Amino acid sequence: MAPPALVANGNVADVKSPTAGRYAAVYSEVQNSRLDHPLPLPSVLKKPFKVVDGPPSSAAGNPDEIAKLFPCLFGQPSAALVPDSNNSSGQALKIGVVLSGGQAPGGHNVISGIFDYLQDRCKGSTLYGFRGGPAGIMKGKYVVLNSDFIYPYRNQGGFDMICSGRDKIETPEQFKQAEDTSVKLDLDGLVVIGGDDSNTNACLLAENFRSRKLKTKVIGCPKTIDGDLKCKEVPTSFGFDTACKVYAEMIGNVMVDARSTGKYYHFVRLMGRAASHITLECALQTHPNITLIGEEVAAKKQTLKNVTDYIADVICKRAELGFNYGVILIPEGLIDFIPEVQQLIAELNEILAHETVDEAGAWKKKLTTPSHQLFDLLPPAIQEQLMLERDPHGNVQVAKIETEKMLIQMVETELEVRKKAAAYKGDFKGQPHFFGYEGRCGLPSNFDSTYCYALGYGAGALLHSGRTGLISSVANLAAPVEEWTVGGTALTSLMDVERRHGKFKPVIKKAMVELDGAPFKKFVSLREEWALKNRYINPGPIQFVGPASDTLSHTLLLEIGSQV
Amino acid sequence: MAPPALVANGNVADVKSPTAGRYAAVYSEVQNSRLDHPLPLPSVLKKPFKVVDGPPSSAAGNPDEIAKLFPCLFGQPSAALVPDSNNSSGQALKIGVVLSGGQAPGGHNVISGIFDYLQDRCKGSTLYGFRGGPAGIMKGKYVVLNSDFIYPYRNQGGFDMICSGRDKIETPEQFKQAEDTSVKLDLDGLVVIGGDDSNTNACLLAENFRSRKLKTKVIGCPKTIDGDLKCKEVPTSFGFDTACKVYAEMIGNVMVDARSTGKYYHFVRLMGRAASHITLECALQTHPNITLIGEEVAAKKQTLKNVTDYIADVICKRAELGFNYGVILIPEGLIDFIPEVQQLIAELNEILAHETVDEAGAWKKKLTTPSHQLFDLLPPAIQEQLMLERDPHGNVQVAKIETEKMLIQMVETELEVRKKAAAYKGDFKGQPHFFGYEGRCGLPSNFDSTYCYALGYGAGALLHSGRTGLISSVANLAAPVEEWTVGGTALTSLMDVERRHGKFKPVIKKAMVELDGAPFKKFVSLREEWALKNRYINPGPIQFVGPASDTLSHTLLLEIGSQV
Repeated sequence: MAPPALVANGNVADVKSPTAGRYAAVYSEVQNSRLDHPLPLPSVLKKPFKVVDGPPSSAAGNPDEIAKLFPCLFGQPSAALVPDSNNSSGQALKIGVVLSGGQAPGGHNVISGIFDYLQDRCKGSTLYGFRGGPAGIMKGKYVVLNSDFIYPYRNQGGFDMICSGRDKIETPEQFKQAEDTSVKLDLDGLVVIGGDDSNTNACLLAENFRSRKLKTKVIGCPKTIDGDLKCKEVPTSFGFDTACKVYAEMIGNVMVDARSTGKYYHFVRLMGRAASHITLECALQTHPNITLIGEEVAAKKQTLKNVTDYIADVICKRAELGFNYGVILIPEGLIDFIPEVQQLIAELNEILAHETVDEAGAWKKKLTTPSHQLFDLLPPAIQEQLMLERDPHGNVQVAKIETEKMLIQMVETELEVRKKAAAYKGDFKGQPHFFGYEGRCGLPSNFDSTYCYALGYGAGALLHSGRTGLISSVANLAAPVEEWTVGGTALTSLMDVERRHGKFKPVIKKAMVELDGAPFKKFVSLREEWALKNRYINPGPIQFVGPASDTLSHTLLLEIGSQV
Repeated sequence: MAPPALVANGNVADVKSPTAGRYAAVYSEVQNSRLDHPLPLPSVLKKPFKVVDGPPSSAAGNPDEIAKLFPCLFGQPSAALVPDSNNSSGQALKIGVVLSGGQAPGGHNVISGIFDYLQDRCKGSTLYGFRGGPAGIMKGKYVVLNSDFIYPYRNQGGFDMICSGRDKIETPEQFKQAEDTSVKLDLDGLVVIGGDDSNTNACLLAENFRSRKLKTKVIGCPKTIDGDLKCKEVPTSFGFDTACKVYAEMIGNVMVDARSTGKYYHFVRLMGRAASHITLECALQTHPNITLIGEEVAAKKQTLKNVTDYIADVICKRAELGFNYGVILIPEGLIDFIPEVQQLIAELNEILAHETVDEAGAWKKKLTTPSHQLFDLLPPAIQEQLMLERDPHGNVQVAKIETEKMLIQMVETELEVRKKAAAYKGDFKGQPHFFGYEGRCGLPSNFDSTYCYALGYGAGALLHSGRTGLISSVANLAAPVEEWTVGGTALTSLMDVERRHGKFKPVIKKAMVELDGAPFKKFVSLREEWALKNRYINPGPIQFVGPASDTLSHTLLLEIGSQV
């Protein structure tokens, strides 16, 4: 299908999607230019290849329990694609694909990669896209993906080709539904594009299908902007690169503004609840004055007062140097990492479930002393949020707490105290920001575009070879694309167990920021300089051609470098 | 100065600024690539030219009063640069430049343009950069701008080369200070880069210098991301293009997220208090479901309830079509356009200044009935903001009101009512956003880079020709750069008077969104389609090379097109 022509007088062009796959029939010039952006494949995928097995695998922890949970799959080897002399032309396959969980830039390219693999290597194949996430599998809601349908989504952001969902396939009934759909569609394979939970789920599904002697194989793909699904074989999750670049563009702009204006401290909260990879990567890209890393706060068992004091200390030192402005990065999940806050929230959940909250505050006596003290330390607006915003189970909604505003108020209060004590002479004005949704659905960077395409193409190859229970693994990413390696890693080898409701549950452990890892150590070696001297960098907007169009994330480069 | 080399393993490069002009010594690859981005000049500026006068000018309104306020300058002609056969090499000049007011991408290029003009045409000249805005003129705080100092700022965002400020030169003492500095530095000319207020001020300064028989000439340059300083001769203010593109990138991403997730209404507040140009331009670039334009709300004398109902109506219709998501654009200054809100705020200011506010709410009886009703309609958090957040003069701080959150709550309440009446069956979840500081200091787009350079180069030419009281005017912007026209427009011709404290004060009227103008009419012709059918466009990040790197704003194209 030829790229649509530009409308002469504007920046937009019409794309007629024959199957109405994308309801918006209008594309920007940049979106349009991305449609035919070439996607280079690693050399191994361009010529005849075969899939070879590695040594037997184990588990990330508690191998005995994992072995019990995955009797069919445990111990299976990882697989690698290597060049082969035989040009094995495959039979037609029936493959399903599903997007699971939050959006990450590049998801559409994973699907394009699977599709193109089937077109190239298994003529006559059918690719089913399950709509709306795992629920689409259970309910048998799908669409047949053909080239006209897929074309408008190539190198485009979002998950709207088939949309996503957060349902899980967990209960015996749900497994049965998935089985019914697989049988009905005569599926040879299923690709699950998702994060740690979804890949755990994919592995359970693979195990279930195997034990039920179904022919349907299941392959996972590592997706999450949070960057917390990775291991040696899977160097990064897709979407992380683009999301961080979008956030870093905004942070860089705010830094230039801060320096130009000279009067604001910008408190920037960044998406990423569980791990602080995004915040760390953005710091490495932009050099803010202060960066809070949740994992460090937890390791040092810091209190909210510690964090506030740390910020106030830097602000005081900067004021002495004549700088009454700055930029501070805060991970969305910060307060989840502060033990005393967790304790307070647990006590509040308990109290609010059983007590009447009186205006006079007598209910507060039910709090333990440390929690009571912490509560009184919090700004009134945050106290109110803690009391009011509750989820359907009556729990405090931590996600709704605007941590950046909370910290601004706490720092303001602390600085007022110091001012009275003549320990601070500056003027403090805080500006809150939250960068989240803007980054999840950006146009994928060249890296994410190419990486995802290879992940999808590789997933097709793994299914074609009959593998199951693997996660598509593309590595050697610091090298030119031709030299990237392609294979699959046993999902069971990434797993450990957690005890829930008296039962062992398999989990792929989230990859947290490692405090002895190269990215964090690099940050630590520079943060004092960044705090007092202004070393701001403005990465600028993502470029698709020309300078900086092929950069990798600092996190990836540093991690790969430290492995060598 | 050669562009600095890239650090091998990262995305950043060191730029050693010999004069330490930019304290951040580190540049991203994109920033770096912009340093040597070529800046094409309009043909007329590339060859010998002369400055010719047009016919005598008048004023935008009340010419008699403007004539009294500007006895020396009123009626002077605008000037145009035209090719000339004589290669007039000029004498060395001493020129000052000042940045005034809020940041706008491209300010550094205006300075680069002035500097290069002096280098090219008036060898041996000196360019003084006044630091920190007009206060720098009054206090005689300046830096001599040489090529090493300026180089690191070429095509870079922000105003940090010499920083800006919001002081005004207004009182006789302040005029005297400006005069003293001009005499001390023996200034031939001064370029004031600013918005409507700053250019009015520049004209007063020009008048003052002329009446005092000083040799210092004053030329203005049209700066503001808000886009509200423009006229036929000055088709756009610089910075508008870049800021809108940064915001439109984010809006486009949020749209893709909305469509992928299918469950959120994103309420996006955009910077721009006085006029709604930014919101209108972003709408034309991205096609949101709902766009509020302050000027229309005011013209139709809409109430907050009208606005809420309009949003709720669209949401209900979309729910019937199966769409429980959408994107809504809101100009920052929306509530300034709603007469009843202005009335309520005026009453509140009065009451809060004189009355004790009792918990029971007896104070509310002092409100007029419509204001009382409106107050009761507001969400509690907004009521609180209106009561608490006050400026040093005791006035309610309208700027602190988070209009997007207010509208989310009001729409939520309205939809609950409709749900009970079975008129709405959807689920409503609002997500608030504010895009502001991210856009003010972005890396200037190619358009703003080139436009600003021409504005500065032209300002140099106007000063060189001895003109004063003009605003640098570059037009014919839809044509290739070579064909752009260059000249200066009499600032008095843009002025009208306002009566303040019993005196006439000259003002350059802000250019508001015109409801019979081409951009608004285009929007009106499409908004119903955008409301119900999803026509989202994702403009993507600003590109500096390749596709979409030379696009113009829709507003500019439509306005120029409608003038033809």
